[in-house]
Amino acid sequence: MKKVRMGMVGGGPGAFIGGVHRMAANLDGKIELVCGAFSRDAEKSRLMSQELNLCPSRCYDSYQQLFEQEASLPADQRMEFVSIVTPNHLHFEIARLALESGFHVLCDKPATLTLDEARELAVVQKRSGRLYALTHTYTGYPMVVAARELVARGELGAIRKVAVEYHQGWLADTNAESGKQAAWRLNPEQAGISCCMADIGVHAANLAEFICNDGIDQLSADLNASHNRQLDDDGVVMLRFASGARGMLSASQIAVGEENNLRIRVYGEKASIDWSQEQPNSLKLMHADKPFEVLRSATDAAAELGGITRTPPGHPEGYLEAFANLYQQFAEQVAALRQQSTSGNNPLPGINEALRGMAFIETVVAASASEQKWHTMPDLTNIPNTGDSL
Amino acid sequence: MKKVRMGMVGGGPGAFIGGVHRMAANLDGKIELVCGAFSRDAEKSRLMSQELNLCPSRCYDSYQQLFEQEASLPADQRMEFVSIVTPNHLHFEIARLALESGFHVLCDKPATLTLDEARELAVVQKRSGRLYALTHTYTGYPMVVAARELVARGELGAIRKVAVEYHQGWLADTNAESGKQAAWRLNPEQAGISCCMADIGVHAANLAEFICNDGIDQLSADLNASHNRQLDDDGVVMLRFASGARGMLSASQIAVGEENNLRIRVYGEKASIDWSQEQPNSLKLMHADKPFEVLRSATDAAAELGGITRTPPGHPEGYLEAFANLYQQFAEQVAALRQQSTSGNNPLPGINEALRGMAFIETVVAASASEQKWHTMPDLTNIPNTGDSL
Amino acid sequence: MKKVRMGMVGGGPGAFIGGVHRMAANLDGKIELVCGAFSRDAEKSRLMSQELNLCPSRCYDSYQQLFEQEASLPADQRMEFVSIVTPNHLHFEIARLALESGFHVLCDKPATLTLDEARELAVVQKRSGRLYALTHTYTGYPMVVAARELVARGELGAIRKVAVEYHQGWLADTNAESGKQAAWRLNPEQAGISCCMADIGVHAANLAEFICNDGIDQLSADLNASHNRQLDDDGVVMLRFASGARGMLSASQIAVGEENNLRIRVYGEKASIDWSQEQPNSLKLMHADKPFEVLRSATDAAAELGGITRTPPGHPEGYLEAFANLYQQFAEQVAALRQQSTSGNNPLPGINEALRGMAFIETVVAASASEQKWHTMPDLTNIPNTGDSL
Amino acid sequence: MKKVRMGMVGGGPGAFIGGVHRMAANLDGKIELVCGAFSRDAEKSRLMSQELNLCPSRCYDSYQQLFEQEASLPADQRMEFVSIVTPNHLHFEIARLALESGFHVLCDKPATLTLDEARELAVVQKRSGRLYALTHTYTGYPMVVAARELVARGELGAIRKVAVEYHQGWLADTNAESGKQAAWRLNPEQAGISCCMADIGVHAANLAEFICNDGIDQLSADLNASHNRQLDDDGVVMLRFASGARGMLSASQIAVGEENNLRIRVYGEKASIDWSQEQPNSLKLMHADKPFEVLRSATDAAAELGGITRTPPGHPEGYLEAFANLYQQFAEQVAALRQQSTSGNNPLPGINEALRGMAFIETVVAASASEQKWHTMPDLTNIPNTGDSL
Repeated sequence: MKKVRMGMVGGGPGAFIGGVHRMAANLDGKIELVCGAFSRDAEKSRLMSQELNLCPSRCYDSYQQLFEQEASLPADQRMEFVSIVTPNHLHFEIARLALESGFHVLCDKPATLTLDEARELAVVQKRSGRLYALTHTYTGYPMVVAARELVARGELGAIRKVAVEYHQGWLADTNAESGKQAAWRLNPEQAGISCCMADIGVHAANLAEFICNDGIDQLSADLNASHNRQLDDDGVVMLRFASGARGMLSASQIAVGEENNLRIRVYGEKASIDWSQEQPNSLKLMHADKPFEVLRSATDAAAELGGITRTPPGHPEGYLEAFANLYQQFAEQVAALRQQSTSGNNPLPGINEALRGMAFIETVVAASASEQKWHTMPDLTNIPNTGDSL
Repeated sequence: MKKVRMGMVGGGPGAFIGGVHRMAANLDGKIELVCGAFSRDAEKSRLMSQELNLCPSRCYDSYQQLFEQEASLPADQRMEFVSIVTPNHLHFEIARLALESGFHVLCDKPATLTLDEARELAVVQKRSGRLYALTHTYTGYPMVVAARELVARGELGAIRKVAVEYHQGWLADTNAESGKQAAWRLNPEQAGISCCMADIGVHAANLAEFICNDGIDQLSADLNASHNRQLDDDGVVMLRFASGARGMLSASQIAVGEENNLRIRVYGEKASIDWSQEQPNSLKLMHADKPFEVLRSATDAAAELGGITRTPPGHPEGYLEAFANLYQQFAEQVAALRQQSTSGNNPLPGINEALRGMAFIETVVAASASEQKWHTMPDLTNIPNTGDSL
Repeated sequence: MKKVRMGMVGGGPGAFIGGVHRMAANLDGKIELVCGAFSRDAEKSRLMSQELNLCPSRCYDSYQQLFEQEASLPADQRMEFVSIVTPNHLHFEIARLALESGFHVLCDKPATLTLDEARELAVVQKRSGRLYALTHTYTGYPMVVAARELVARGELGAIRKVAVEYHQGWLADTNAESGKQAAWRLNPEQAGISCCMADIGVHAANLAEFICNDGIDQLSADLNASHNRQLDDDGVVMLRFASGARGMLSASQIAVGEENNLRIRVYGEKASIDWSQEQPNSLKLMHADKPFEVLRSATDAAAELGGITRTPPGHPEGYLEAFANLYQQFAEQVAALRQQSTSGNNPLPGINEALRGMAFIETVVAASASEQKWHTMPDLTNIPNTGDSL
Repeated sequence: MKKVRMGMVGGGPGAFIGGVHRMAANLDGKIELVCGAFSRDAEKSRLMSQELNLCPSRCYDSYQQLFEQEASLPADQRMEFVSIVTPNHLHFEIARLALESGFHVLCDKPATLTLDEARELAVVQKRSGRLYALTHTYTGYPMVVAARELVARGELGAIRKVAVEYHQGWLADTNAESGKQAAWRLNPEQAGISCCMADIGVHAANLAEFICNDGIDQLSADLNASHNRQLDDDGVVMLRFASGARGMLSASQIAVGEENNLRIRVYGEKASIDWSQEQPNSLKLMHADKPFEVLRSATDAAAELGGITRTPPGHPEGYLEAFANLYQQFAEQVAALRQQSTSGNNPLPGINEALRGMAFIETVVAASASEQKWHTMPDLTNIPNTGDSL
């Protein structure tokens, strides 16, 4: 397969997530970074471009310039998709222009800052005919995919209860705001209406919906802001799913000592599962009437999980490999479109997840501020001309 | 110390919890079972009495007879306290009569079926001058006491978030009701207004209040009943504590594959703790700025925990030892009262926990049925003449 | 069942293991402590007797006096068995006299200080017709019995490799000798020829032989003594079993930070098991071609383990319950002998384990001092008139 | 930094380890694969070359051709180092020719099939002035490096005991030989004198020496071969280190149910560590007199570990990242040599580890076959002109 050509917007010197995206894109050797607009500061963009050994002519001063000039290159040279890794408040504008300029888009989460923007983006994407993917990274873990398949095959029976939590501790300190990562997340102008729920709560909600192939329908919420912060840094949500399953979601950035503790348990009528992001290669499968089992990614699930595990049994894989799975699947879809074909049905999160994520955030924030107990998620089916995500 | 003389009401042949109480009372050799009314069936009571090698004259046909006749024995022979291990709906009447008959009472949880009964019992107990203890067994675990002390000493700083859960799976099956243990718990006439919250949710609430030395003030709840059951077998509660801490509580008896998974995490401003009943001898202590530690009951906490650990490091203790701690502390209090003294300040759960437990259950059930989001726990301070629990 | 009457030799004020034995005997309410010679200091013995509420006439000044006077009591009053919990170097003499005086014996490990003594004790026991049991406590854990049954049923296939280790850290410090527990263990006059291997290595060897129902046949050893100690405080042994299985055994008392880390893994042709004393209620069962399972004592093994689990699923049991299982089984055997019957085939460790344990210790010590690689365990079959242990 | 240009010998279609090396080389975007001789079958080599998007002119039919033609290219185009990922028996010849042709070498483990070959390679490497690295991958894990630093800083005090084990189960089945991976490992002509010890036992020995910065001096061994295999598939080794520390090593490929269970515990006078490859981001640090701590790679060790962790706290890294660390460090050394400088003192395994590894394998095999207990590792200091590995 000819390598898929990627451009990048954002990810300049010192930016954390840009580096993660590049490692994820590198890992399998199927994607080549050919151009970028790495910073609003042209000099910084150039420095990064040199560090990455890019051709100087394809280091751009702005994303507008990038889309314009790349579009003018011969088809077999120009960037095929753009990876957007800027601060969150810029995602929407850049993604819209990329799609309108004819490029596929792989965007760091969140897709937009508001649900209205997400609705608009959905319309643009549908019209463009271009691919759009959102890096809900945790769905790239092999055992998350295995969990989804267990549920889909009915091994758990009807789902009754979902307990999902995402606890971090890095914002516990009063002085956390002095750090770059915290400052923008706690600033409504850059982060929108929520910090904790928008940053990590939405991952937890997405994970629950992904594994259960079910949608959150109603919720009740209690968000919390420490240190007189303007945005939430902690919260609890009671969930009711479309299927009738109940659930709870807890997210926190002030849970002192927690690192990145995303954990989900799904209790079904016949069996239950338990998965933790910090031990991602194991999936506990509990039964009503026999000892619990622990499924291991490269041993018990490797065959059916196909290309998304890379190592033999007992050689742990981690976050970068999960991230790389999203890149690999996206690259396969891009390559397939070269020949007008499709690359099969994979569950890469896309525009629908963008819509649902923004709907979740807005509903949770409204619910927390309300004395009314239950709040219903908005109807997302009436996007004109929007169907499947990709 | 002369052994403390115990009688027992309930705990006949085949009764599970009676045997647990007897093992807990036996373990330390400080308590002697001298009499009992083990069953409403006099023949069954006699069989149990024989199995236990009791003097035949002190096997009674009813609890009324037991209290009356024991009261007439010489002071150095008669039962000093009664252990009540009957079905729940009888606890209140038996405890009241025992106190009124001049006996100390150690009662299996719950204290009563309603908050009104608990209020009445509180009045009776206060008037009687007799001791009353309630077996919230989990507070008998050494590392739970250690956790409470860590919080009390300020090692966690102000508490911000409490996550407590109690998940079991034994009622998941539709046919669970055919078992003896399930049948009465799911029958409103014997169990009162709640199954899951009354049986285990209240333990979780008690554990949170015990460790944090804080009271639940407001809550919002969503209870669930599978299989068209009349009472809840699952539920989620959002919590607000008097101190301002937030929390969530999840309890379930339909969480397939879970055994007795009571776990609590308390996140403070400076540090956090994590304890699980199924691994009770370890307490994870997480810090903001250094590696997490794991405190071990017999190694790191033995000195300050005094008599409530019994084995050297690495020799695990369990549920029966936690239960025995409640018995041992109660026996010490009874023995101390023989000489009009008290046995120090230990946190044995008593009439206040009886009141708070019933208040929690009633508030949760009401909240779940309501469209109003927040419900306030009733005022429990105006019990006439009721002060400290013991 | 009429309670079985126990006497005790040793276990005076401040003695640790005596208290453990008494708790183990108390737990199930089937055994009554009726007499004792708790210390060589008659005053201390009397104090302990009072603390235990014994009848003053049955507190004796010496074990000789105890055996003599109890033997003269009416059959329905006198002690039926003696529990020996003195320092190790006294076990042999006391056990011999007890058997010769017509009493059953339950003895703390080790049985004797030398293999020659053990051989002599075996002869005495056989001649006496009395029961003899040795508290290899770890064989009392339910999941150890379950492991033995899995092996016996052939679920693992032929055993290929056994890895057993017993690591503690309490003797790591140079000054450990100043403590009472360490002082005698490191003193050859009281402890015999070995500290670590005699104290804990022999438990590891016993556990391996018990679970596999196999005997160590040959071994090679490397023992170690820190701080110029006279006896070993650490060591490694390579094992060859009679069945052909290979193994390794590591024991240490200088493994800083380890508490009581006894762990065994048994690898068979078809499946393998992994058990750790510090998490005793779980047994990992690994398969060649499907996910590993975790068997839980009260959930997955309760039925077949009969009376040796006491709590419902998820309510942890520990060391004292394992110890109590040995007492309970021994009491059942004693009670059965009252009616000339036997109480079924239970695997309580007895005189054969006493012989094998002493043989192991002596062979390991000799092997470590030798330049010869392999050393064969002595023949233990030629004890005159000695057959089954009980 | 200009990308470092890599060639590859081996790693054709279907070869497992070649793909792992390529992912490791790709991850950080600092290395470019520019040429290869991927298979002895020229057609297969070409297919792989196409799949990897190499320039057709730089796909070679043999490693001899590769070295010859690359050497003739301009300095700024030609391969700078070769990655050798062929079957083991070819490593030596290829590495020798590469070094003699002026290329740096990064070779999959083992370096050679015999110690004599390793000695010869050491001479060639010294003479060549080229870099040589050996992929003892497990030393690339951040917490292994952290463990080595803890030991080096004296935090454990003098080391007393090392327990290292490497258990796998994939060769347990009689029919394992039918698989490609097993067939050559069990064939003396391709694998040399040992299967299990050469394949994984040597990793365990290397890990112990690496962390303790100590050398195995004497050993005693018992190897085992199931199913009448010609080579060992299991074994135990007793170790004595140059420092006086004792140890044991167990390696197995027939431990049913084990995946890749490499674990090491190092017990020192003051503290101890415990690390497992299957949970690589945690390092348990046990103390004599306070609770044990768990150091986490990205939280507690990130600062001092510099560039060898890539993700924020709680985002697990795994085997590929450990492998990539070796590649990254090697590439930095290659780049540094471009300017005649060195890239600092990093502990990349090289020719000394090649020598020690082969010496370990030969000594273990000889020891196992011998009736003599202790065997001394050969003197490796008298290699002419051989000094530091790099």
